[in-house]
Amino acid sequence: MSKHQHHHPHSFDPKNEAEYLKGHSHAKGDHSHRPIIMFDKNGIPKVVDHEHDHTTDADYQDDYMKAVAAYKKTFPDKERQMNETPDPAVREMVRRMDDLGIDSVFDRFDAQKPQCNFGIAGICCKNCLMGPCRITPKSPKGVCGADADLIVARNLCRMAAAGVAQHGMHAREVILNLMWAAEGKLDVPIEGEYKIKAVAEQFGIKTKNRQLKNITIDLCKALLDDLSTPYPGQYKTIAACAPPERQKVWQDLDIIPVSAYHEAFESNHITGVGVNGDWKSVMQQMLRDGLAFTFSTVLGTSIATDGLLGIGDRATAKVNVGALKKDTVNIAVHGHLPMLVREIVRTGQTQKYIDKAKAAGATGIQFYGICCSGLSAMYRYDGVIPLSNAISAEMVITTGALDLWVADVQEVYPAIMDVAHCFKTTVVTTHDSGRLPGAEHIGYDHHHTNIAETKAIAEKIVDRAIESFKNRRDVPVSIPNYEITADVGFSVEYFKKAFGGLQDLVDAVKDGTIRGIVNLVGCTNPRVVYEKTIVDYTDVMLKNNFLILTNGCASYPLIKLGYCQASEPAWDRCGDSLKDWLKAHNLPPVLHVGECIDNARSTAFFGGVAGALGIPIKDMPYAFASPEWANEKGLDAALAFRLFGINSYHCVEAPIYGSKKVTEYLKYGSKETLGSVMVVDADPAALGEKCVRDVEAKREALGWD
Amino acid sequence: MSKHQHHHPHSFDPKNEAEYLKGHSHAKGDHSHRPIIMFDKNGIPKVVDHEHDHTTDADYQDDYMKAVAAYKKTFPDKERQMNETPDPAVREMVRRMDDLGIDSVFDRFDAQKPQCNFGIAGICCKNCLMGPCRITPKSPKGVCGADADLIVARNLCRMAAAGVAQHGMHAREVILNLMWAAEGKLDVPIEGEYKIKAVAEQFGIKTKNRQLKNITIDLCKALLDDLSTPYPGQYKTIAACAPPERQKVWQDLDIIPVSAYHEAFESNHITGVGVNGDWKSVMQQMLRDGLAFTFSTVLGTSIATDGLLGIGDRATAKVNVGALKKDTVNIAVHGHLPMLVREIVRTGQTQKYIDKAKAAGATGIQFYGICCSGLSAMYRYDGVIPLSNAISAEMVITTGALDLWVADVQEVYPAIMDVAHCFKTTVVTTHDSGRLPGAEHIGYDHHHTNIAETKAIAEKIVDRAIESFKNRRDVPVSIPNYEITADVGFSVEYFKKAFGGLQDLVDAVKDGTIRGIVNLVGCTNPRVVYEKTIVDYTDVMLKNNFLILTNGCASYPLIKLGYCQASEPAWDRCGDSLKDWLKAHNLPPVLHVGECIDNARSTAFFGGVAGALGIPIKDMPYAFASPEWANEKGLDAALAFRLFGINSYHCVEAPIYGSKKVTEYLKYGSKETLGSVMVVDADPAALGEKCVRDVEAKREALGWD
Repeated sequence: MSKHQHHHPHSFDPKNEAEYLKGHSHAKGDHSHRPIIMFDKNGIPKVVDHEHDHTTDADYQDDYMKAVAAYKKTFPDKERQMNETPDPAVREMVRRMDDLGIDSVFDRFDAQKPQCNFGIAGICCKNCLMGPCRITPKSPKGVCGADADLIVARNLCRMAAAGVAQHGMHAREVILNLMWAAEGKLDVPIEGEYKIKAVAEQFGIKTKNRQLKNITIDLCKALLDDLSTPYPGQYKTIAACAPPERQKVWQDLDIIPVSAYHEAFESNHITGVGVNGDWKSVMQQMLRDGLAFTFSTVLGTSIATDGLLGIGDRATAKVNVGALKKDTVNIAVHGHLPMLVREIVRTGQTQKYIDKAKAAGATGIQFYGICCSGLSAMYRYDGVIPLSNAISAEMVITTGALDLWVADVQEVYPAIMDVAHCFKTTVVTTHDSGRLPGAEHIGYDHHHTNIAETKAIAEKIVDRAIESFKNRRDVPVSIPNYEITADVGFSVEYFKKAFGGLQDLVDAVKDGTIRGIVNLVGCTNPRVVYEKTIVDYTDVMLKNNFLILTNGCASYPLIKLGYCQASEPAWDRCGDSLKDWLKAHNLPPVLHVGECIDNARSTAFFGGVAGALGIPIKDMPYAFASPEWANEKGLDAALAFRLFGINSYHCVEAPIYGSKKVTEYLKYGSKETLGSVMVVDADPAALGEKCVRDVEAKREALGWD
Repeated sequence: MSKHQHHHPHSFDPKNEAEYLKGHSHAKGDHSHRPIIMFDKNGIPKVVDHEHDHTTDADYQDDYMKAVAAYKKTFPDKERQMNETPDPAVREMVRRMDDLGIDSVFDRFDAQKPQCNFGIAGICCKNCLMGPCRITPKSPKGVCGADADLIVARNLCRMAAAGVAQHGMHAREVILNLMWAAEGKLDVPIEGEYKIKAVAEQFGIKTKNRQLKNITIDLCKALLDDLSTPYPGQYKTIAACAPPERQKVWQDLDIIPVSAYHEAFESNHITGVGVNGDWKSVMQQMLRDGLAFTFSTVLGTSIATDGLLGIGDRATAKVNVGALKKDTVNIAVHGHLPMLVREIVRTGQTQKYIDKAKAAGATGIQFYGICCSGLSAMYRYDGVIPLSNAISAEMVITTGALDLWVADVQEVYPAIMDVAHCFKTTVVTTHDSGRLPGAEHIGYDHHHTNIAETKAIAEKIVDRAIESFKNRRDVPVSIPNYEITADVGFSVEYFKKAFGGLQDLVDAVKDGTIRGIVNLVGCTNPRVVYEKTIVDYTDVMLKNNFLILTNGCASYPLIKLGYCQASEPAWDRCGDSLKDWLKAHNLPPVLHVGECIDNARSTAFFGGVAGALGIPIKDMPYAFASPEWANEKGLDAALAFRLFGINSYHCVEAPIYGSKKVTEYLKYGSKETLGSVMVVDADPAALGEKCVRDVEAKREALGWD
């Protein structure tokens, strides 16, 4: 019970009972003794500063609504996007859309202005039909009695749960694929024997004198158990893979999950009307989502993907739309699920299909990648060219160069259909979870009853691409002339192969040659200038001699703009000590580790370097940044690192302003429990400066120079 | 692909390309040929009537926003609530709250006016941080390109998923309890041997020559498997328990779930940004949620509850706050989870604890029930007095008569804490999922590590109640003088015992003595006059000779106002033929079947009568009504019956006005696929008249008089 709660020691004299109760009907809860700051004091957005305990709720509501208004003013409009977004190919494609009268994401974002203040503040509740409710000075509680703290916490917890579900379905799909491959239901080879055996041993699964398929099945069952069990008990992946120091922290906080399915389910349960009334308990549940996300949906997916498809290797890839060819059958793969993409690419690379394409008048078949499918394929299969992240997918279609667009799940905006329709680009959906009106569906059903037909499905899709090529020779093609190469496919395994292990990196981090390591990931979001925050933040970090790991949507500007090259122009962006070290190791300043689930690879770097030094991860000079995060799973991705005690840095604000307590918890209070906080600044350079300061403080605490 | 979609047969002449593409950038999708009517034409709310195909989206937006405005005008204010709510005890308690300056749900509802139009129309999307987005004529698509149809469908699907999660956690808890009892981890007897064996046989579980505990464990594993498995395959409960006619319909629609956990997870997945872009596919997923809800979370919970605690029997219970005693230790149980409630009630009824209470100055210990815990306990344990559903729980506390309030999960509004605090009512939370700030927690942890301590927890809680009794002798008590009895605890099993089976009922339905059977359930919602819609709808149905089954929150006004008595005043509310039949069978006009999960009992009546006649349930003269539905799980409860081909009737509108297609699908289109539609009218009498007409049409189609 809060120390500020008002007690009722008086006896109930009926005469003054009404008098007595008046004004006492709201338990006050505990007040903050810390300042709550939205962004910072040095410029861009709004600041709310509560130095004192006696700020009333009404004062706070007034202040945070001002902060929301100021925050909205930082949102760029299309004109600013076009002036400041760093990739000239993007600007060129948007101008083409303008010429053709096609709306882009920037038009739709501008049309949505002014956005709802209540939604941005997180204080709109639609979780039952007694509402919708909104917290205002006039209506401080929802119909059920939920206050701003509870509503903000519930909305955030549901967001985290949805993120677990999104990544979790990716996990389920890949783990089932691997298991079906082992069982012979899916006719593909298991290409990651080393990974499977190494992980199986961590899990305590017997590997000696056993067939790979049996080890694989046992491992998949363990991963699926962590993903879905309703039985309380040990979370195997955490027990097998998490550092003991963290396991103790999480146990003490009582946030070890039952399973990913369970915690997402439970999050939807407790956030319903009349279930959990305590914002702190709801935040605790959000952390369970974060752990389930980390271990079942990121690490589990990564294990299964590497087990099924192999780890991949460092490779040099062509990048950006300038690499689009005019005379090939052009197939884009867009989404996240790797199995069918693998089959499609392999089918398209067979002589049989190359001959079919030639017979149709093409010079061959070329694959391109959008979003994570593109990244995953890029470093595993020769010649897959990554073009764009989610936001500019619709722009890429306006080149008119794509004959077929294969979409599965996540980051496939429905907006692509309008554009595809105009340019006669055939869109094929392959997964029951990701249907698009007007697309053709050539893929799996809800129960995967046709999983054995995977090769036939892939062939049908490539055949459809060739047919589409023939049918759209009249479509005008306009390809912006921007093409570059990027070195990709980095991992701890690569370091072992190239440098004999992590020791060089460990030494460089400890002696200050490299001041710190940042994992820079996340979505893209028109609330900030597209791709600019990522680049600007990166520039600050490199200049300050921070090594950057990247994956997923955020990695696109970095590969498109030359940050992933091991050569002078890229090295020149770095401070001297980092530059020299990179040159000596022939590494680019930004190490591209893969798709979004390859956060597990970044964690392997973090864990490996910390482990070599015998220092808990939370004390290491590390940071997590997702400057443009937009998706629900982006919340979990940040939590995944926050749970290890690593601060997260963002240019986009979470919907929390409406709750002083939740805001304080995420930006200050969780330092005490997790060892990390969330840091937000709409100005990416200022965010970078903060990040440098915070990490330098960690170095100082370690007694490092 | 839609027949209205615009094709592009022209060749792309770069000269007129821009001209050509302009105005073609939006695929139109298919238009409706049916009228869409909100409520009806005879009075109360607004009508939108689209007889023709050529209504534009802008016209529709204009019309539906008018409908939303008119709908909001039907919301009562507190004054009207106080004038028209039928239970005088409620009015008296609210007046007391007014006198004391304590806000009630009616005050909070009024303070929330005017509610957000976008939220009511379902066209606000907060599923990523590129928004929040709202559909307007100026902004017809969200930032990702989602249109009104997709946004409405996604919001509805998430609502259904949350409902599955809410009921699903109830299911998990009870099934685990039963399994732990069988395994000896939980020291309680298994009281429903008959039920367990009968169901086990349906599931194909061997029962002969086996110990009950082993049969029980197998059954629980099967139920938990359906609840949680990630593996595609057979849904055991559907295969074992659903009519073949329906199984075929559901298979043809491809809506058989993988598991409840899975479908809730998948619903959160596909409704995220850039996953499923097809509103129809999202509605299909909602139906999977509906089936998972029906079979895992209603039927599964019902099986486990009856297996653990026994089926219960017809009983006569005292009802309403007038039954509150002043001199006993008064304990209210509030929520849904029956296991600990059982132990608490049994502990409080032991001589040892009665003596303890007497030593503290009380005459004994008395239990009261709020919401479903009250109903479940009422017909299983002697002397538990049900007082109120969720909305008036806070009002009941203002009697000052409750010493201890035990809350677990669902329908426990946080608002109760303010009132409990004023009246020194000790609130104890018992479940990790349902914490309340200011409450004491005496219960289970997240992983149920202390499940073996159940009896000790129950004793601690009853001891705490006695202590609280001693500490609050100074609290003024004011008990409205309304008390009544209700006959409760009906089931098919009772009919077998009392009448040898269902044949009398079958004959009465077929020959028209009883024109139809309605399952009347649902929450309560201040959007309509509290408890009045339930009573008014019931009056129409009884007068028209419909037999009513009821459970859960909606049953409270019926038990409080005499509808559940087998005697003249109740019978006089009925039409002549129903009245005579009820008198002959000594049955009340409204058969109370239990708590919300006892919708399974209503389904057993529906299935039993239809089965005896060899007629599919969808063709029978049945209806489902939840006039005041408010909770997310209320959507699933309606779906549960809609999926069987039974229409659902409501006085509260779902958040669907923003989508012509979703509205049409739910109110017309689903007739073709499921055999049922959703019917809404804010006027309960008009709703009843519609229901009578619809069911009479079914009789006519059957060739019955």
